[in-house]
Amino acid sequence: MSRAFNFCAGPAMLPEAVLKQAQSEMLDWRGTGMSVMEMSHRSDEFVEIAETAEKDLRELAGISDDYAVLFMQGGASSQFSSIPLNLLGEKTSADYVNTGIWSKKAIAEAKRYGNVNVVASAEDSGFASIPDQSAWTTSADAAYLHYTPNETIGGLEFDFVPESGSVPLVADLSSTILSRPLDVSKFGLIYAGAQKNIGPSGLVVVIIRKDLLGKARKETPTMMNYQVIADNDSMYNTPATYSWYLAGLVFQWLKEQGGVQAMAELNSRKAKKLYDFIDGSDFYANPIAARFRSWMNIPFTLADDGLNGAFLKGADARGLLNLKGHRSVGGMRASIYNAMPEAGVDALIQYMAEFAKERG
Amino acid sequence: MSRAFNFCAGPAMLPEAVLKQAQSEMLDWRGTGMSVMEMSHRSDEFVEIAETAEKDLRELAGISDDYAVLFMQGGASSQFSSIPLNLLGEKTSADYVNTGIWSKKAIAEAKRYGNVNVVASAEDSGFASIPDQSAWTTSADAAYLHYTPNETIGGLEFDFVPESGSVPLVADLSSTILSRPLDVSKFGLIYAGAQKNIGPSGLVVVIIRKDLLGKARKETPTMMNYQVIADNDSMYNTPATYSWYLAGLVFQWLKEQGGVQAMAELNSRKAKKLYDFIDGSDFYANPIAARFRSWMNIPFTLADDGLNGAFLKGADARGLLNLKGHRSVGGMRASIYNAMPEAGVDALIQYMAEFAKERG
Repeated sequence: MSRAFNFCAGPAMLPEAVLKQAQSEMLDWRGTGMSVMEMSHRSDEFVEIAETAEKDLRELAGISDDYAVLFMQGGASSQFSSIPLNLLGEKTSADYVNTGIWSKKAIAEAKRYGNVNVVASAEDSGFASIPDQSAWTTSADAAYLHYTPNETIGGLEFDFVPESGSVPLVADLSSTILSRPLDVSKFGLIYAGAQKNIGPSGLVVVIIRKDLLGKARKETPTMMNYQVIADNDSMYNTPATYSWYLAGLVFQWLKEQGGVQAMAELNSRKAKKLYDFIDGSDFYANPIAARFRSWMNIPFTLADDGLNGAFLKGADARGLLNLKGHRSVGGMRASIYNAMPEAGVDALIQYMAEFAKERG
Repeated sequence: MSRAFNFCAGPAMLPEAVLKQAQSEMLDWRGTGMSVMEMSHRSDEFVEIAETAEKDLRELAGISDDYAVLFMQGGASSQFSSIPLNLLGEKTSADYVNTGIWSKKAIAEAKRYGNVNVVASAEDSGFASIPDQSAWTTSADAAYLHYTPNETIGGLEFDFVPESGSVPLVADLSSTILSRPLDVSKFGLIYAGAQKNIGPSGLVVVIIRKDLLGKARKETPTMMNYQVIADNDSMYNTPATYSWYLAGLVFQWLKEQGGVQAMAELNSRKAKKLYDFIDGSDFYANPIAARFRSWMNIPFTLADDGLNGAFLKGADARGLLNLKGHRSVGGMRASIYNAMPEAGVDALIQYMAEFAKERG
C-alpha cells in the first residue's frame, strides 16, 4: 500500500521526509561511498553527524551547558536501573509518583537498589486523575523525585511540572519529549526512549544536570555510569550510530517544522479534535479527567466491545494501523506523536464517525 | 563516489545487496505502508522478522535447542558486566585469558564483581603469540573461562578452541562470528557485537547454554538479566528492531552465499592473499606469529612511518577507506569481514604494491 497512518505507541511513525532522506543516503552518505551504518563512530563524518544531532537537540529543547546530553542504548527500561544506581549516592531512598504501568516498572526496578517512597498514586482514581501536589508525601531527604509525565498506555498526562525544591526532579519523557516546550532547568534528569518522538528504537537520550554526575555506586555497570558516558561523549563503546543519525534527521525535520512551539500547536490541535469528537459521541468514550488527558496517546472504548474486531479490521483496510489498545487497558488507542500528520487524525475521526453511524 | 571498499574495524562494511534491500523497503515493508523501524515490536510482521532472523542464525551457526539466542542492546561492552553478574553465581572467581585490548577491558570490568584469575597472557610475546594451553593456570573451581578468540585491534587470533572441561567457556566472538564454522556446543556463552559481521551497531547477540540461565546476582539490572531476556524472547522492552531486521537480512545473504563454510573459504583466501603479499614485501610487515594471525583484522606497518599519511591519502583517493591502524598499535589495519569482497583485498594489494614501488 501507500504510506499508512500508523497509530502505534512505539516504535512509532516517523516523518516521511526523514525516511526518504535516509533511503536516498542508504548506500552512500554525501559521497563517502558508505552508509552511515558502515562508518566508524570515530570518523570525522560520524562525529559531525553526532555533534550536529546534539546541537540541534539542545537548540530545540533549550538545553543549557549545565546539562550533559547522552545518547545511550537499552531504552528507558535500562534507565530504570541506571537512575537509582547513579543518583542514590549516599542517600537511602527516592520518591516516586505512581501514575500507571510505566511508573510501576520504574518503581519496581528502583526498589531493587534502595527504599522507594511512593509519594502519590493515581490508583485511587483508576488512573484517570493525578493527585494534587499538595497531597504528596515527598521528603526533603529523597535522593530524587521521579515521575512519568505521560503514561503511554493509560493516556494519563501531567499538566504541570512538579515542584521538587532542592531534590532533583527525574522524568521519563519518552512519549512527550519535543512535542511542546519544556523548561529543562526544572529537571535534574530527563530520559527518553527514542522510538516515539525521536527515531528508531535502540537509542535512549539522557539529559542530566552536570552536578549529578559522578555519584554512581560501585556496582554500577560501566556502560550504565553516566559519568563515564559523559566523559566519552557517548562513545565509551560503539554507540547505536544509525539510530543516532536518524534522530539527527528527525531533529532537523523538527527545526524545519518550526520547532517545539509549532509542534505544540499542531499536537494540541490534533488531540483536541480527537477528544472533542469522542466527547461528542455516544459511541466512543475516554475515561481520563479532562485536564490530565494525554496529547500523545489517546485510549478510547467502543460502546460495545464485541465490535472491536470489526472496528480494527475496517481501520486496517483504510490504512489506519495499530489502533488496538494495550492488553492491560483494552479498547483502542491512537498514538499521535509529532510525526502523525493532522490528516491522519482527520482520517481517523472520519472513519470513527462512519463506523459509529453504521454499527453504533 | 560509488561504493567504497571500507576496511573499518567496526562499524564495518555491509553487503551491498543487504543495503539495497533495506533501501527499497525503507518506506514500505512488503506492502504494510510502514518502515520496519516504525513497526510495533509485538506486531505479527516484526515478530516474523525477528523469529526468521533467529532461525537463520541458528541454522547458519549450528545452534542447538540447548541454547537460548538473545538479541540485546549495549554492545559487547555491556556484556563485560552482564557476564560476571549472570554467571558468577555462588562462585567467587572466574578465569580470563589476556590476548590484548579487548581481553583487558573484559578483565577490568569482571574485577569489579569478583576475583579474576588471568590464566594466560600474550603480553610476554608483545601480543604476537598465544601461550600453549598446557601452560595455562586454569582452575576447576572457576565460574567460567573467558577468552577473546580474535583481538580486533592487535590482529591476534586463536587457532584453537580452549578445553575448559566442566567450566563453561565464554567467548567474545564479535569479530569472527559467522566467518567460518564453529562448534557452538563447546561453549557456555558466546557474545558478539553486531557491527562487524552481523549488522549495524546497537545490537549484541548472546548465545547461552540454557542451564546457565537463572543465576544472576540480585544487583543485576533487569535489562542485563539473561533469564529475563530469554523468558521474553528478547522483548522484555522494545528491542533494537531495525538493527535486528538488518541482522536478519545479513543472515539471509550469508545463506545465499553458501553459509559459513563458503565464508570460511572466501575469508581464508582473502587473508592468505594479503599476508602472502605482506610477507613477500620488504616494505610492509605484520608482527603476529603465523599461526595466530587474524583472518579478519590484519594490521601492518610501512617500512617508514613517515609515509603513513601519504599511504592513507592515496588509499582514500582510490576508495580504499579506513585503513589507519588503531592509535594504540599505529600503522595500518585492514579489517576484512564477511562483507568485504575479494575484489577489495585485490584492490588493496594492488595499491600497496604500487605505493611500495613508488615510495619504498
